Amino acid sequence: MSTQGQSKAYRDAGVDIDLAQNLLQRVKAKISATRRPEALAPIGGFGGLFQLDLSKYRQPVLVASVDGVGTKLTVAAMMDKHDTVGFDIVNHCINDIAVQGAEPLYFLDYIGIGKLRSPLYEQVLEGAAEACRLQNVTLLGGETAEMPGMYGNDYDLVGSITGVVEKDRIITGDRIAPGHVAIGMASSGLHTNGYSLARRVLFAQAGLDVHDRPEGLGGGSLGEALLEPHVCYWPAIRAALAENLALDGLAHITGGGLYDNVPRVLPEGVAVRFDASAIPTPPIFRLIQELGQVDPYEMYRVFNMGAGMVWFVPPAAADRALALIGESGFAAWVIGEVTPGAGKVTIDNVES
Amino acid sequence: MSTQGQSKAYRDAGVDIDLAQNLLQRVKAKISATRRPEALAPIGGFGGLFQLDLSKYRQPVLVASVDGVGTKLTVAAMMDKHDTVGFDIVNHCINDIAVQGAEPLYFLDYIGIGKLRSPLYEQVLEGAAEACRLQNVTLLGGETAEMPGMYGNDYDLVGSITGVVEKDRIITGDRIAPGHVAIGMASSGLHTNGYSLARRVLFAQAGLDVHDRPEGLGGGSLGEALLEPHVCYWPAIRAALAENLALDGLAHITGGGLYDNVPRVLPEGVAVRFDASAIPTPPIFRLIQELGQVDPYEMYRVFNMGAGMVWFVPPAAADRALALIGESGFAAWVIGEVTPGAGKVTIDNVES
Repeated sequence: MSTQGQSKAYRDAGVDIDLAQNLLQRVKAKISATRRPEALAPIGGFGGLFQLDLSKYRQPVLVASVDGVGTKLTVAAMMDKHDTVGFDIVNHCINDIAVQGAEPLYFLDYIGIGKLRSPLYEQVLEGAAEACRLQNVTLLGGETAEMPGMYGNDYDLVGSITGVVEKDRIITGDRIAPGHVAIGMASSGLHTNGYSLARRVLFAQAGLDVHDRPEGLGGGSLGEALLEPHVCYWPAIRAALAENLALDGLAHITGGGLYDNVPRVLPEGVAVRFDASAIPTPPIFRLIQELGQVDPYEMYRVFNMGAGMVWFVPPAAADRALALIGESGFAAWVIGEVTPGAGKVTIDNVES
Repeated sequence: MSTQGQSKAYRDAGVDIDLAQNLLQRVKAKISATRRPEALAPIGGFGGLFQLDLSKYRQPVLVASVDGVGTKLTVAAMMDKHDTVGFDIVNHCINDIAVQGAEPLYFLDYIGIGKLRSPLYEQVLEGAAEACRLQNVTLLGGETAEMPGMYGNDYDLVGSITGVVEKDRIITGDRIAPGHVAIGMASSGLHTNGYSLARRVLFAQAGLDVHDRPEGLGGGSLGEALLEPHVCYWPAIRAALAENLALDGLAHITGGGLYDNVPRVLPEGVAVRFDASAIPTPPIFRLIQELGQVDPYEMYRVFNMGAGMVWFVPPAAADRALALIGESGFAAWVIGEVTPGAGKVTIDNVES
């Protein structure tokens, strides 16, 4: 230690300031690799600095969001595998602002933890840093709070993102009209929503273990299926924006499923009718539904059920949208259509 | 409910989506009151929208930070009083970017909680919203994550802030030189740091209760002293920036105290010598030191010990700085001086 101060009593109380600094050093290179040219300050200062490139924008609007990973973290703990949740939080945050057409610029992480430990800490941060790097997002700052007695053996992971969009290119959903096509982009699984229900059904009720390999999961373990990282849809959205595709509305399907997330982007006077049979639902959802005897409609309210992002485009743009999504490396299908109505979402052909 | 979906199984698993929505409605007016003209979107969309007023800046640099309240939340729970922690998280975040000269623009909150409940939720958000309103910061968005089994009866509160500063007006500390004066601004108590040690000493070791009124606290209860909100120093900093005072360095004294936070702003070749006897230390710190037999130097490494913010100004600007801080309603004192040296902080006259 380089100061007069001693950290003994504080360490005895469960907080090790030096350990946090040492572990942070180990991931500094990965974090530095996420720096966009606009990022000014080295990490370690009080706040992260990001100079907006004004030559690129006429009327820049910042778009910001904050989110957590939820109890998917409990599954990470059961598997003792903590890199994928880093991807989850970054990708979730990016999707949340991408639906308004925003390019993600910088991300900040928060880890609240009962007892700071290695390699958990490095795994989380390396996952988050790598997810940022892949999408050209700067990991601009973060905070790790060691809180003895508060989290037990658990931890929480929170992310905050800021992006930018031209004011006249904000995707508002206002142009969605009857006849518009709803395209669903494939999810990788639960993403970051519905884990409390999933854990209750799979672990508490059915008595399964994360290392079990239930039939239907294609040979993989339950833990692997549950930890599949949240898909980042930004590359496909960016490609659509780049060629001025008529991307009239985007809904990120998170907690609340199609039922709650789609109405958030619908203008007055329209409704959406989805066809559940058009959405290839990953087997993990069927497993939860069957083992938990969950009402099939509730499945669509809690989970994404296979569609993690919904695009609304005019019929003339649907083929190009599908092609473009495919070129970006994602699977997608026409899963519904916009009708006249009062903002309601209806899902047909729900399998019970 | 307006959808086909049922939330029964999810509610049985401990997550009540409808309750969160209903409670949010109750605080919507307070949140709306924080809207600056630049804030575009109503709350409830996916991301919050904030249009930067480009007519006000030449080279705007965004400054971002994320932080938590730490185990001060445990004290809030013991007192069953949750509005002040809302002030804590907002003020802490504002201070963290104000030290670089940034005007705070927008704030996002995250609440992670085992079991969502009223009026705790409204108290937290109302406190945060009011703290934002007082400093002209938009509460642009937030997330509440109900995570059964993860937080027990506790919750965590995280904040993320973005502000803006002209590139050539970023306060970097680079101009701090030998002879510069260190001015300390009064803290209200622990602010948001050192609570794990404080709780261990006061509750676990000394067996005190939050409702006890130990001698020396001026008649107030221990819980009240511990919940004193984090002071927001932005109004004084803003006033100094407005008149181009030579504010060459600012350090927010958080976890790590003077020892760890001051070196973060020092350029090469200088050190700082503080005089502890010049800092009026609130009685709560003495109580912790005495009851816990804590090494007096460690006290200054864990706690702010009465100085929540340190200004570094040239000697010629010191009187004006003190006057200006006073006019802004804060107490402050000359507490140290900059010397030649290797970045070290020394504290003289520490009381044992």
